[in-house]
Amino acid sequence: MKTYKKDLVLTSNGQRVSYHNITESVRQAVKESDIRNGLCVVQSPHTTCSVIFEEFVHDLDFNGDEFLQVDLNRILDHIVPRELSEETNYRYPGPKHLEFLMGLDDPNYPCDPGTILNGDAHIRASLFGASETFIISETTLQIGSVGYIYFIDFDQNRKRNRKCQLMIIGE
Amino acid sequence: MKTYKKDLVLTSNGQRVSYHNITESVRQAVKESDIRNGLCVVQSPHTTCSVIFEEFVHDLDFNGDEFLQVDLNRILDHIVPRELSEETNYRYPGPKHLEFLMGLDDPNYPCDPGTILNGDAHIRASLFGASETFIISETTLQIGSVGYIYFIDFDQNRKRNRKCQLMIIGE
Amino acid sequence: MKTYKKDLVLTSNGQRVSYHNITESVRQAVKESDIRNGLCVVQSPHTTCSVIFEEFVHDLDFNGDEFLQVDLNRILDHIVPRELSEETNYRYPGPKHLEFLMGLDDPNYPCDPGTILNGDAHIRASLFGASETFIISETTLQIGSVGYIYFIDFDQNRKRNRKCQLMIIGE
Repeated sequence: MKTYKKDLVLTSNGQRVSYHNITESVRQAVKESDIRNGLCVVQSPHTTCSVIFEEFVHDLDFNGDEFLQVDLNRILDHIVPRELSEETNYRYPGPKHLEFLMGLDDPNYPCDPGTILNGDAHIRASLFGASETFIISETTLQIGSVGYIYFIDFDQNRKRNRKCQLMIIGE
Repeated sequence: MKTYKKDLVLTSNGQRVSYHNITESVRQAVKESDIRNGLCVVQSPHTTCSVIFEEFVHDLDFNGDEFLQVDLNRILDHIVPRELSEETNYRYPGPKHLEFLMGLDDPNYPCDPGTILNGDAHIRASLFGASETFIISETTLQIGSVGYIYFIDFDQNRKRNRKCQLMIIGE
Repeated sequence: MKTYKKDLVLTSNGQRVSYHNITESVRQAVKESDIRNGLCVVQSPHTTCSVIFEEFVHDLDFNGDEFLQVDLNRILDHIVPRELSEETNYRYPGPKHLEFLMGLDDPNYPCDPGTILNGDAHIRASLFGASETFIISETTLQIGSVGYIYFIDFDQNRKRNRKCQLMIIGE
């Protein structure tokens, strides 16, 4: 039994939901792992990011987002509306939590209250889940002929580096 | 450490969302695996299918769908509406992607543009996730006394065979 | 290769959605497992419960719920409305299933029809999924600096004990 791990670093655009097609990187890690049969877990350690399995679409909108991403954004704006100001219905973050976040000495949490209204990104990431698990069979990631793996940063407020972690386990 | 894999083949009805109760097949695979403690991953390699954990309901509607499935369909029709024509809000598939799909030499993608408007199925499958992971403890799948495993094909446009993959890993 | 398992018992409040912050218990189990690199699966065997990865928020409402939980409850009440009476749109449970549930000789299913209208909890739990999988790297659960693990009981009708199961696998 073997384990193999790898971290990917992905840069969010900071202006809208960021979708990263990481399929080739995951395939490459499976190859490096030398694992024939087992599991490949793709996980976000961030609470505003998710991993999904979706079709790649050849058509892009003017922002460069694939059409299924544009569709997903539209639907999410309806069911989990954006927290664009304090006047929305979101209670997050709240005064104590704002003080906590502003006091974090972390380059990923710069002391800018304008970036903290991301309650929508938190709810969306919980909905889609932090990870996705894929089967490896005879050295091949089981994602079909038109399946792709995307890392999503639902936080639209900050351009920053995000980590996507891979753990491959098997034999 | 051992791994055991098995594929299930399930036929979608092609008229509405297809729900397949695969609990007994998964239990059988766990038995065959001879694995005492570990994990059982149930995964769809298709981007319009999901795996969920849900209660089995004894009451069916006139189509033969269980009442929780009828309820779920109703809610999804509201939050992720069907793409029934080009006049909907969906951008998917787009002209280039349509050309790509129509050119695929795959019996599962017959050259019939009438089956390709399934943006809703893609979004729904991302929302529910492609896989579910269950714990095996002392040879028993940990799904409680009223828990069942369902494979869902959200694509309502095509009657076709779908694959559901199982990977069991443990000792 | 090693496996390590542990069950947590959590008591739902029976009045609203119950959120249990189980992060420290999961961390403790990872420590006890003595597994350096691998996976930690956190799973509910109940079909009205889910596991999510979310930020801990310092601000609470008068019920004691964290602000992101209050926000999530509000959004869910909108997209998957509560089944508060037979007059709602839910078909669940249906006459045959009600009879089945009332006949169960299980202390967790007391023969009280007033607790059985929980179709919303079933749909919500399917949406969020029954499990979440976390990577363990060099003995550390990969949940970042502000990430926490919550066990949710979406059933608001009954105060009862719920099981949350952990399986840790790796080397």
